[in-house]
Amino acid sequence: MEILLAVSKVNKYATSDSGDSVEVVERPNGGISVVMADGQSSGKGAKQVSILVVRKVVSLLSEGVRDGAAARAASDSLFTERKGKVSATLNIVSIDMQTATMVITRNNPLPVLIASGHEICAFDDECNPIGLYRDTRPLISEVPLDPGLTVVLYTDGLVHAGSRSGESLDIKTFLQTLIEDDVDEEETNPQEIADALLAHAVQLDHGRPVDDITVVVIQVTSQKSGSVRRMTVELPLN
Amino acid sequence: MEILLAVSKVNKYATSDSGDSVEVVERPNGGISVVMADGQSSGKGAKQVSILVVRKVVSLLSEGVRDGAAARAASDSLFTERKGKVSATLNIVSIDMQTATMVITRNNPLPVLIASGHEICAFDDECNPIGLYRDTRPLISEVPLDPGLTVVLYTDGLVHAGSRSGESLDIKTFLQTLIEDDVDEEETNPQEIADALLAHAVQLDHGRPVDDITVVVIQVTSQKSGSVRRMTVELPLN
Repeated sequence: MEILLAVSKVNKYATSDSGDSVEVVERPNGGISVVMADGQSSGKGAKQVSILVVRKVVSLLSEGVRDGAAARAASDSLFTERKGKVSATLNIVSIDMQTATMVITRNNPLPVLIASGHEICAFDDECNPIGLYRDTRPLISEVPLDPGLTVVLYTDGLVHAGSRSGESLDIKTFLQTLIEDDVDEEETNPQEIADALLAHAVQLDHGRPVDDITVVVIQVTSQKSGSVRRMTVELPLN
Repeated sequence: MEILLAVSKVNKYATSDSGDSVEVVERPNGGISVVMADGQSSGKGAKQVSILVVRKVVSLLSEGVRDGAAARAASDSLFTERKGKVSATLNIVSIDMQTATMVITRNNPLPVLIASGHEICAFDDECNPIGLYRDTRPLISEVPLDPGLTVVLYTDGLVHAGSRSGESLDIKTFLQTLIEDDVDEEETNPQEIADALLAHAVQLDHGRPVDDITVVVIQVTSQKSGSVRRMTVELPLN
């Protein structure tokens, strides 16, 4: 079995700082976590907030703190630092080798899509972003690490794409189409899914994204590709 | 211009914990840094040391601390925590958007290979690993971000590959061959370079690596691929 993770990310048109931050961290007891935050508004202020949140969570996870506790700590920390005036959305997805599950943590009104084989369900119970209230709690869902599992999360830039022209992206249907396109039992790989969603959103915004957009896709595959771990980063410079 | 980064990593044969740790972090003033540490010996103890070092450096870099100061802090921190009895090697490579340079920081006796076009030079001035002495200083080299620049760093598992059978990998010559294979001005991409070096080392060890091996390759290319940032992770599970 193998875990494949892909992140695709674009800034709001004509801004150099993205209000979205994503980091991947190794878990001290095995596995990895991906942490995604979107700070309120856009530009430098939003970037500072989302980096603050991601750094707090990553730092706690790397000490062995559980995901739920890390999310609460990030909320309390942001609430204290910004006096409840600034919010951020937060998602954590962990491959936890101790429980052999994928742990999905949400402090984000947007759903996380969970596909097992060709069936897609939305983990979309109501929950709050962090930073605005004391005692904000995350919602947590645990899914067994079975081959064919694909989890997709995103920031609100993906949802708002096309809003200027009254269009919008039906993310679940789009994902369904991508997954059903699987040829010869070969799963569409996460990078293709993330890129396709992002490209479609940018197209709806006529090449000028109205907001920062981040898409994260995590997949459990049955493929055996040996024992090599890999990571790649692509960073366009202006 | 675009920055491409690739990490390929394999554990010592029959061990579940790698003494090598690598993380990539976003710099608060623009750009990214990759931090690689190799803790003394192997297994759980070495993993703890290398995670400690990488976490310390990543945490400081994300606050805007300069690379040299972060390396010194990691050394002092390890020296204090382990009373000078445990060493680790440390490398930091940063794409610094403030200076438009690649900043290469070494606390590692092994060289960092720097290729500009088809010419390869080794940044191999003598320096110490961290943790053993007070006042350990890193060596730092700054290189302009020009297309065609490729930087390769690795842990000692790559150098020791084949040692059981008296063979060894001439890394510089091997890299030269890879780079000269460039077809039609198309650069060999970092993932191919990292994978080729790692595969050759594992082959010299007859498929059973005698030590943890990590290879990191960073490339500056002139290709324009739009404004999308990407990250991928491949994590094999047992």
